[in-house]
Amino acid sequence: MQVTASAPGKAILFGEHAVVYGKPAIAMALSKRAQVKVTGRLDKKIQVNIRDLGIKEYINLKENIVTSNSPEKGILKYVLNSVKSVHQESGLDIYIDVNVPIGGGLGSSAAVTVALIAAVSKYNNIDLKKKEIARLAHKVELEVQNYASPLDTIISTYGGLIYLKDAKKIISLDINHDIPVVIGFTDSGGNTMCSTDTGKLVGAVKIRKESYPEIINPVIGSIEALTIEAKEAILNNDKKRIGELMNINHGLLDALGVNTLELSNMVYTARVAGASGSKITGAGGGGSIISFCPEGTEEVIAALKKIENAFKSDISKDGVKTTLKEVR
Amino acid sequence: MQVTASAPGKAILFGEHAVVYGKPAIAMALSKRAQVKVTGRLDKKIQVNIRDLGIKEYINLKENIVTSNSPEKGILKYVLNSVKSVHQESGLDIYIDVNVPIGGGLGSSAAVTVALIAAVSKYNNIDLKKKEIARLAHKVELEVQNYASPLDTIISTYGGLIYLKDAKKIISLDINHDIPVVIGFTDSGGNTMCSTDTGKLVGAVKIRKESYPEIINPVIGSIEALTIEAKEAILNNDKKRIGELMNINHGLLDALGVNTLELSNMVYTARVAGASGSKITGAGGGGSIISFCPEGTEEVIAALKKIENAFKSDISKDGVKTTLKEVR
Repeated sequence: MQVTASAPGKAILFGEHAVVYGKPAIAMALSKRAQVKVTGRLDKKIQVNIRDLGIKEYINLKENIVTSNSPEKGILKYVLNSVKSVHQESGLDIYIDVNVPIGGGLGSSAAVTVALIAAVSKYNNIDLKKKEIARLAHKVELEVQNYASPLDTIISTYGGLIYLKDAKKIISLDINHDIPVVIGFTDSGGNTMCSTDTGKLVGAVKIRKESYPEIINPVIGSIEALTIEAKEAILNNDKKRIGELMNINHGLLDALGVNTLELSNMVYTARVAGASGSKITGAGGGGSIISFCPEGTEEVIAALKKIENAFKSDISKDGVKTTLKEVR
Repeated sequence: MQVTASAPGKAILFGEHAVVYGKPAIAMALSKRAQVKVTGRLDKKIQVNIRDLGIKEYINLKENIVTSNSPEKGILKYVLNSVKSVHQESGLDIYIDVNVPIGGGLGSSAAVTVALIAAVSKYNNIDLKKKEIARLAHKVELEVQNYASPLDTIISTYGGLIYLKDAKKIISLDINHDIPVVIGFTDSGGNTMCSTDTGKLVGAVKIRKESYPEIINPVIGSIEALTIEAKEAILNNDKKRIGELMNINHGLLDALGVNTLELSNMVYTARVAGASGSKITGAGGGGSIISFCPEGTEEVIAALKKIENAFKSDISKDGVKTTLKEVR
């Protein structure tokens, strides 16, 4: 038997970091999807093949460790914990294509984790509801990382465009128009899963907030007001406002201290090339930017590729998808 | 008779743009000074020589126009109005070295205007108090530009470090330590006096504030809190806080929409090279950045010079200075 599953990466459109303080955020599922294939094997070994990273390793569920501990193979921790959450001891061959750029705040670990939990549970004939997949995947992220937003695993599971009203209330935004974006990302961080960086950045913002409450609290409040306004702008397809709000959000993220030379270079390069708006997406401190491009997509991609990497994306309406195939 | 005068350029350390809404700002006089020399001549002509711009033109006080109207010679409007404010009809040879980078928000027009009013009034045996020089110079700036902060002409006149508590209350900050800064500036704007850009940028911020009051008002409030905090940090020579507050201020200026690719590149290049803090200085939209460099000044200058221009400055305690020499 062979089970395949896929789950999308995500990008935060508005509200990252403020979301840590109970403020709203808006995130979208990306066109890039992690792909997973699970087949049985006769021995009791579990072999993980991650094609786009050139990784081929055995993992041992019982010893709770992965064979390799090199940082390039940080992804194996997610794989181990995901498999453990829905599998006991039979042998498996696991093939993974991450596809989503790694370590850039684009939810690559969540996409792999969600797809893997869906595939392995289906392989084991466990019928998990999406809510349960999202919950288990978030648990895995918490186990591996020192900070994990539930947003990543929710988006990977459900797909679409999501408004996180507060830490608990998730609203799916149904829109008939598209939100065409270009994602720019730097791979200078190397092929590591960004397990600790997000936590570090969240911690650094917390320190800044505590050091300068009268300065930073209004910034968090401004991001909150902006995200609420952005929700209306998206629902009304008010492209001008969506772009302007993205630009303001970028400045506020810069004020929180999560911008870098590479990120600001990408953000402004995208605007010069014609993006209606552009900002850091995710935790910052490296990673990725998102630019809103109702027009001039190709120009923005070309400009970003000159300095870093870039790809186009629409909102992926599909969340996690699983296919079972009987193999004889 | 020959009169020479000089007056310093300025850089805003904290609070630009918010100052337009009655919030405080902190500015310093720079080491770079505009130099002016005025001598009499037998005919009734007034010739202006601006050595560093290669300009040699006659101006006509009565016709209220300058011979040339090319944008490169926008500076002549300041010269004309400055001379008119304290001179009637005898012939003059005026020599000017601007020295302060032009059009970069470093108060070059104010420095020239203040030095010129001081020199020509002294030549005419008019004994102007500093308060009166600052007032006349600000009047000239208002006549030529469509927006002019009184801060530029005040700093050029008085020198030192100034805390503008609100639009009217000016407090001189007496400190015994220095504030070593590196100014980075782009000359892509060309050698024009920035007569309208500041007004345009102030207008653009106003539009953003009116379009998104719930988002932008907290940003203005945050800049206010930050500037008050920065005053204390400067008085206590708390270098870490001065740098951090500059960085936060930069992000808030970005949120107001006055950042550019070139400016953000300079701001982050300075930080990577070792600046404790760095930000846009002045109206933005091109122009200059200021970086606080208690250490690593040379490294920051070298890094900025690779991409744009840069110079080191301390606080110039001297405001406008005038020297009279009898020439036989």
